[in-house]
Amino acid sequence: MFVRVLGAGAGGGFPQWNCTCQNCVAARTDTPGFRPRTQSSLAVSGDGSNWALLNASPDLRAQISASPQLNPLPGGRMRQSPIKAVVLTNGDVDHISGLINLREAQPFSIYGSQRVLGVLAENSIFNILAPDIVSRIPLDLEKPIKLQGDGVDLGLQVEAFDVPGKIALYLEDESAGPDFGTQIGDTIGLKVSDTQSGKSFFYIPGCATVDEKLSKRLKGASHVFFDGTLFTDDEMLNQGLMPKTGSRMGHISISGPDGSIKAFENLDVGRKIYVHINNSNPVLNDNSPEYEQTTAAGWEVGFDGMEIEI
Amino acid sequence: MFVRVLGAGAGGGFPQWNCTCQNCVAARTDTPGFRPRTQSSLAVSGDGSNWALLNASPDLRAQISASPQLNPLPGGRMRQSPIKAVVLTNGDVDHISGLINLREAQPFSIYGSQRVLGVLAENSIFNILAPDIVSRIPLDLEKPIKLQGDGVDLGLQVEAFDVPGKIALYLEDESAGPDFGTQIGDTIGLKVSDTQSGKSFFYIPGCATVDEKLSKRLKGASHVFFDGTLFTDDEMLNQGLMPKTGSRMGHISISGPDGSIKAFENLDVGRKIYVHINNSNPVLNDNSPEYEQTTAAGWEVGFDGMEIEI
Repeated sequence: MFVRVLGAGAGGGFPQWNCTCQNCVAARTDTPGFRPRTQSSLAVSGDGSNWALLNASPDLRAQISASPQLNPLPGGRMRQSPIKAVVLTNGDVDHISGLINLREAQPFSIYGSQRVLGVLAENSIFNILAPDIVSRIPLDLEKPIKLQGDGVDLGLQVEAFDVPGKIALYLEDESAGPDFGTQIGDTIGLKVSDTQSGKSFFYIPGCATVDEKLSKRLKGASHVFFDGTLFTDDEMLNQGLMPKTGSRMGHISISGPDGSIKAFENLDVGRKIYVHINNSNPVLNDNSPEYEQTTAAGWEVGFDGMEIEI
Repeated sequence: MFVRVLGAGAGGGFPQWNCTCQNCVAARTDTPGFRPRTQSSLAVSGDGSNWALLNASPDLRAQISASPQLNPLPGGRMRQSPIKAVVLTNGDVDHISGLINLREAQPFSIYGSQRVLGVLAENSIFNILAPDIVSRIPLDLEKPIKLQGDGVDLGLQVEAFDVPGKIALYLEDESAGPDFGTQIGDTIGLKVSDTQSGKSFFYIPGCATVDEKLSKRLKGASHVFFDGTLFTDDEMLNQGLMPKTGSRMGHISISGPDGSIKAFENLDVGRKIYVHINNSNPVLNDNSPEYEQTTAAGWEVGFDGMEIEI
């Protein structure tokens, strides 16, 4: 099974269009150690020819251009693509709006929870992917499903599971109490398996906390791609960027007693890779003490174009 | 007044993600004479510091990265941008979905016809631009309005006018007859003027035909950026790409007795520049006879990063 990180950044990407924080300025001026990151998406393939995307970021057109394996090969149909399916983990702008780039009457399948497919149905702009050409397939929680699209069996199986999280920002309902109207299915994680080799990995780009259920599920996994949004819960406040903590946004931090480094300490995971990294996060500086601390704890900091064979 | 072409391509861009036409393959393999084009947008500024975008394409994040003048300068507010306004000419995916890139609680103004602002209001995903931070300002037809945003007067005036066109593809209503439910305000052109110098240009990226009213309006203009989607009405059919003509899509062709070269022949326009160029268009090959014919007729073929001072 082949995995390519298309974008390792969080919503807004790195650098972010309107941000002058130290990280963004450094990335914008090509400072060594600060690699730009596009927004959050992975591509996965069992055979190296047919691919599924895990989330579709607003940067998808540029991500496809930068990935030779995602471009159509001359010689077949005039219009075709190696991309046969897209699996969505929540309704966040950085995860669904890239679907718009997959226009042009090209058959493929979109998988998502009923909650997230509901968001697509309510927003007419997604009808640019005509539902009679682009199938919508509901992901039931805890029920493994084989991915297919455009008449192709991808040789991949996906199991969706609910993780602690939050409803998408633009759908928040202030009147609904402290969880803003969040429901089951608003944030899911995925276990992706190769049906031939039986190998698998986990993809959890948004997660508010690692509870006992999630710990049990991840115990002994060979590969986990995990929410690396913030290093510390209050880093955006401290940098004067935004009056919100990570907890308010539904994202666990990397460091600290409630952070993901600590939570994964005894889970015996083979490779642990941070994705969905916000521009405020000091691990985006390869030469920072926080990067050092993160890698010393056995984690990798994901980057665009990172490729892993599982 | 400064104009920068952010993207000179039509919807899908050049190359298009799922296309193996001759042009797209050539662009994908860096063949000389085939410059890639991102999707349709201009940036305009009176003072060189504060900018308005004319349409917001899905490629906007990459377009901002490629345009030094659109990036925030370190030293002021932590979060800020030279982009103060966006003016929309229709509700097409390639013109509105880039708004999503302007997230992150940054104040600016969106101008559009009531029809197009209605599309934004009906699609909850655009609430990522919270209406109390990002103003929506209706453009009344034939009523010049001064652009402002984030408390800044841009020194630019915009006049919107209806042009022959079609409702956005994803909103087409097959049951509404041959015009698919198109109404006044679905496709507009813009006259943009510098309030200091009084100089102006026209921007008409989508237009079905140049009727007498439009001819009169454009007569003697110094600069026109115009719909260059297709070279011939049936080129997409002939290349086996899509069973649709230009007329069906609401786009005039460049060539032929009903084309734009012919229509502009006696309009005495100073500089005529094609934008919104589809990947099927042979003028995207700088060495083609069609490119030769177009430039010989006094037209320029727009490209990303083209800059013009008016």
